[in-house]
Amino acid sequence: MDLWYYEQYGDDLKAGFKTSNVIYKGKSEFQEVVVLDTIAYGKMLLLDGLVMCTDKDEFVYHELISHVPALNHSKPEKIVVIGGGDGGTVRELLKHPEVKEIVLCEIDGLVIETCEKYFPQIASGLRDNRVKVNVGDGVAYMSQQEPGSIDMVLVDSTDPIGPGEGLFSREFYRNVARALKKDGLMACQSESPWHDAQVLSKIYNNVSAGFQNIYPYIGSIPTYPKGMWSWMMASNKNINVHDFDRARLKKLEASTNLQYINEELMTGVFAIPNFLKVKMKG
Amino acid sequence: MDLWYYEQYGDDLKAGFKTSNVIYKGKSEFQEVVVLDTIAYGKMLLLDGLVMCTDKDEFVYHELISHVPALNHSKPEKIVVIGGGDGGTVRELLKHPEVKEIVLCEIDGLVIETCEKYFPQIASGLRDNRVKVNVGDGVAYMSQQEPGSIDMVLVDSTDPIGPGEGLFSREFYRNVARALKKDGLMACQSESPWHDAQVLSKIYNNVSAGFQNIYPYIGSIPTYPKGMWSWMMASNKNINVHDFDRARLKKLEASTNLQYINEELMTGVFAIPNFLKVKMKG
Repeated sequence: MDLWYYEQYGDDLKAGFKTSNVIYKGKSEFQEVVVLDTIAYGKMLLLDGLVMCTDKDEFVYHELISHVPALNHSKPEKIVVIGGGDGGTVRELLKHPEVKEIVLCEIDGLVIETCEKYFPQIASGLRDNRVKVNVGDGVAYMSQQEPGSIDMVLVDSTDPIGPGEGLFSREFYRNVARALKKDGLMACQSESPWHDAQVLSKIYNNVSAGFQNIYPYIGSIPTYPKGMWSWMMASNKNINVHDFDRARLKKLEASTNLQYINEELMTGVFAIPNFLKVKMKG
Repeated sequence: MDLWYYEQYGDDLKAGFKTSNVIYKGKSEFQEVVVLDTIAYGKMLLLDGLVMCTDKDEFVYHELISHVPALNHSKPEKIVVIGGGDGGTVRELLKHPEVKEIVLCEIDGLVIETCEKYFPQIASGLRDNRVKVNVGDGVAYMSQQEPGSIDMVLVDSTDPIGPGEGLFSREFYRNVARALKKDGLMACQSESPWHDAQVLSKIYNNVSAGFQNIYPYIGSIPTYPKGMWSWMMASNKNINVHDFDRARLKKLEASTNLQYINEELMTGVFAIPNFLKVKMKG
């Protein structure tokens, strides 16, 4: 039997993954949660049919959403992760000795349960004693935080349709900005540049409702639409991305196995192709 | 009718392109040549079933294989392009006023004919009077060149199977090195890092038979396997990729519409993720 899973990107493109087995299939009040065993990428998490992460390439997304902002912040002690129920972002953040507290605010408890069971190497950090897991709505959570109380907010969300939609609104970004300290940073995933540059433009525009400075960056994720993914780091402090903390990166490199980022990439990820710059600024 | 073209990557992965029409299908003594009309990417050239270029994203490959080495060479006057029968690499090179002569050495005349007919905006430069089109074997051609006579050789080949195979051999790279002037540069396409890092390692190793210094670089091409592609720039002169010719880039930007590269990307493309560095060095 030849079993293939096809993710369709819009009407005109597909990616096919040969699959040996459907390991898990469940449904929460928010979405369908599926785990496949693919030949090329190992176990694969799908939410409402969209690839979220796989054993083999999850390191790219998780290293980029966490270490890039963390090394551009002088002392990231108190962090909130919105979404990120797989735990990969938390796992990477915990590699920074500066981090004292991480609140993970994931709307869907089934995502956390599923990942703890089937992706233990990704979810490993969720039970660390610096981590508080809060199953609830990230939009509401951010609106309730004390102003100027958080060092970093990472928005590790699904796409801007379905349960993730509110995490891309102007009001949400304003609340994030308000909750951050003066030198605080936000980073959010901001979708596929090749697939839907209009969405990037909208996100850029909405982020600017809360933040004066936006620093888009990109990375290569083979299981995501068209292989390129984007994030936006934002702050109301002016950041020179060439001045990230090289000493802390060296310590990080000595203490853990970074599979994607290194000194050159810490600035290289901010080099954005012209076609995307043009589309992003609308 | 729902018509899809699927390119298969190894046994376990596919990319599907919705297609409105098969525009052309032919066969030379070397390979099958097909032109499809895809919904997402416009016209698409396939050689032996593998995507070579499309209307919508060809700019990435062609800007990267040409401008990156050209701006790292102080005066690229005499250039040989091996392969590249679609003409896109030549089109980009002709944007440099320094260029006096380009020899295009493409083994398959049918590729040139097909591209002149169906991709006129890509093949446009082939009839420029600085360009000599030589339909023949690039391996033989490079072995016959006068030592120290060429400024730049760009190897714009198909994959290292089929007609392109000899263009990845140690002997070929030695011949390229011999034909270059002392400050000469080579750049070659070097396949998909995510899909087959072993091939990259082999290419890196073979290039080192001719060149002391190898500078791998990467770019995002959505219609190529897993969305990331690689090239290697090589020289027997030591090159600092941060010292490319910024003044010439500025002139280039003023005279033409660069859709991918810019000042930050000229160095950003040389920032290589750790997983790839490790695999490439074997």
